[in-house]
Amino acid sequence: MRVLVLGGDGYLGWPTALYLSSRGHDVGVVDNFARRGYDLEMGVDSLVPIVNLQQRVRRWKEVSGHSLDTFIGDLTDATFVSGTLATFAPDAIVHFAEQRSAPYSMIDRQHAVYTQANNVIGNLNLLYAIAEQNRDIHLVKLGTMGEYGTPNIDIEEGYIEITHKGRTDLLPYPKQPGSFYHLSKVHDSHNIHFACRIWGLRATDLNQGIVYGQQTEETVLHPDLATRFDYDGVFGTVLNRFCVQAVVGHPLTVYGTGGQTRGMLNILDTLACVELAVLNPADPGEFRVFNQFTESFSVSQMATMVADAFDGEVEVSSVPDPRVEKEEHYYNAAHTKLLDLGLEPHLLTREVIRGLLDSVRDHRDRVDLDAIRPTVKWRETASTLATSGSALSPTTAG
Amino acid sequence: MRVLVLGGDGYLGWPTALYLSSRGHDVGVVDNFARRGYDLEMGVDSLVPIVNLQQRVRRWKEVSGHSLDTFIGDLTDATFVSGTLATFAPDAIVHFAEQRSAPYSMIDRQHAVYTQANNVIGNLNLLYAIAEQNRDIHLVKLGTMGEYGTPNIDIEEGYIEITHKGRTDLLPYPKQPGSFYHLSKVHDSHNIHFACRIWGLRATDLNQGIVYGQQTEETVLHPDLATRFDYDGVFGTVLNRFCVQAVVGHPLTVYGTGGQTRGMLNILDTLACVELAVLNPADPGEFRVFNQFTESFSVSQMATMVADAFDGEVEVSSVPDPRVEKEEHYYNAAHTKLLDLGLEPHLLTREVIRGLLDSVRDHRDRVDLDAIRPTVKWRETASTLATSGSALSPTTAG
Repeated sequence: MRVLVLGGDGYLGWPTALYLSSRGHDVGVVDNFARRGYDLEMGVDSLVPIVNLQQRVRRWKEVSGHSLDTFIGDLTDATFVSGTLATFAPDAIVHFAEQRSAPYSMIDRQHAVYTQANNVIGNLNLLYAIAEQNRDIHLVKLGTMGEYGTPNIDIEEGYIEITHKGRTDLLPYPKQPGSFYHLSKVHDSHNIHFACRIWGLRATDLNQGIVYGQQTEETVLHPDLATRFDYDGVFGTVLNRFCVQAVVGHPLTVYGTGGQTRGMLNILDTLACVELAVLNPADPGEFRVFNQFTESFSVSQMATMVADAFDGEVEVSSVPDPRVEKEEHYYNAAHTKLLDLGLEPHLLTREVIRGLLDSVRDHRDRVDLDAIRPTVKWRETASTLATSGSALSPTTAG
Repeated sequence: MRVLVLGGDGYLGWPTALYLSSRGHDVGVVDNFARRGYDLEMGVDSLVPIVNLQQRVRRWKEVSGHSLDTFIGDLTDATFVSGTLATFAPDAIVHFAEQRSAPYSMIDRQHAVYTQANNVIGNLNLLYAIAEQNRDIHLVKLGTMGEYGTPNIDIEEGYIEITHKGRTDLLPYPKQPGSFYHLSKVHDSHNIHFACRIWGLRATDLNQGIVYGQQTEETVLHPDLATRFDYDGVFGTVLNRFCVQAVVGHPLTVYGTGGQTRGMLNILDTLACVELAVLNPADPGEFRVFNQFTESFSVSQMATMVADAFDGEVEVSSVPDPRVEKEEHYYNAAHTKLLDLGLEPHLLTREVIRGLLDSVRDHRDRVDLDAIRPTVKWRETASTLATSGSALSPTTAG
């Protein structure tokens, strides 16, 4: 199949492009390098060095024999979007190309507006390009489990049957997202659902959990094929942060009580899920929602697991939660649809954590501990922060 | 109280400003004249002539003795928003300042993106300005009953208690909006709800039905105080269209079977509801949702009511529905919260319809029948329409 990977230079987009390419699909990569730009803005970097896209693509051709088409541009540029679709003529589009950090979206007004405008407008341009060129193209869109928040009932996959005052309907699952970023994904979901209803588009919304892991069968073939490893306070995820803190001898910083529970999955399962979605497209007019994660853990559990896997002493300490979220809550989310399609999960074993710790050790000299501190606080905004230093200058924020 | 009316030059914003001013509130009017710009773009006009804002404000001062502060600018300009709030220092903000036509949002990609960017970004700028200046300001935001769509269960006011697999939670009511405009209001609702959670803002979301009526106690005091009467295929509402068609002897054009049922209310009740919300603010951190309508009618019922009220022959004919919507559906929506605050509804009587018909007769020479034809079709996009004329040129679309 012809698959266009939007955001194909990013943490998951790049390994997805390689995975699909290695399995014989014709793959195009679309990116505007916004993700690399955020690094420059925040003064941080991937722990594992990454080379530029052109070098990545040349190396992949050399290693695998497969070519990747590249399209450099921005989804908010409608002419670029329609031109790219017309040129590549995809059967499926995998859409990773959004600003995906909750803390980044919460820095200040400008970053909130950027996140929602970038994500929502890029996605609208994409929906129109599909509707106007080929309504049979299957859109595989990356959403997030964070769209649901933490309701006091079981989370279902996109829809819930509600019986109310003697009548019953299957309705979109209520959303309670926890950042302007997570809200942008909720907006996207509503827009895509509508596009499926009016234009008969085929779409799969992958409500993904938190992904861990940095190595795939393809990325390990050469250092130039490596993908990112983020551990900073804005783009890093909690498991990566804990691994870095363990290796450098810093206490693992748990936000609040650590009872926050989230769905998680191995990067290898992200790749498998995306291909399963691509190979089993939604029906015309169908807005299909899969919850894409394999296990749930609380932050405290993750800290304990990292401490257990680490050879040596590890201290765990609590810091005030910079977010507004429930620190203790019910959490039980369905995730059977991808298993039904054949997903075979890679679970978060002691060996997997030891592999992550090894990756950190290999690049220990690149660790910047200042980058880990949570500088973006949900209850404050730019003007409040202005008195104590800019949220964008973590190393000078005191 | 000091009340800032955003979109205060529009169909409802202007009479709301006068109503609040006449009741002793200090009122500021904010507008960017986008609504007048849409008229120029579409080549249509209000049936009742309206003068410019400066003349309206001068006339109101002369007639009532009350001054209105004016702020001319765009909510997508964050500097303008924060400056206006700092200057006027409102106790409450009534936010009408959004692109509010479903057909306009469905013209093509550009209009869909404009509608969502304009509405969502303007509202985000407003939320940040409130959070950064005075979290006690009460935001009274105009939403729409169209956010809910037409579910097969009763529609509640913003939230629904769901019991699922033995557990219960009160959750945001699921949304199934029917246009990119209606979607923008759903996005706003999610963003405001979040702002209330993280910043403790006070907000009331008025999910308004379709408003009819053109005269209020204040606007009838002088022709310069009149508000708009829209009957065109893009900004006009169905009852206005039927009244114009009856007066000029054109068959009343019902879309499809006419079973589409919607909540409606008199313009006099909009004014009363807004003041009730302003006088009874939401609590800090509360995102309160009121369903603001008084009666529900199907399109067929409205056609029959207009035909009954009209002195003379009226033909009713069906045209293909340009929208994607259920033509026959269950509809039962709660609307008790504003009644509990003291709303005394003005219902859609034969006399009210006769009053509308009289308004049309007074301006019969200004009717442009070409403007009524539905030119925007939900299932098509710009490129499809390109072959049969532009959606923006209704008089040349054949």
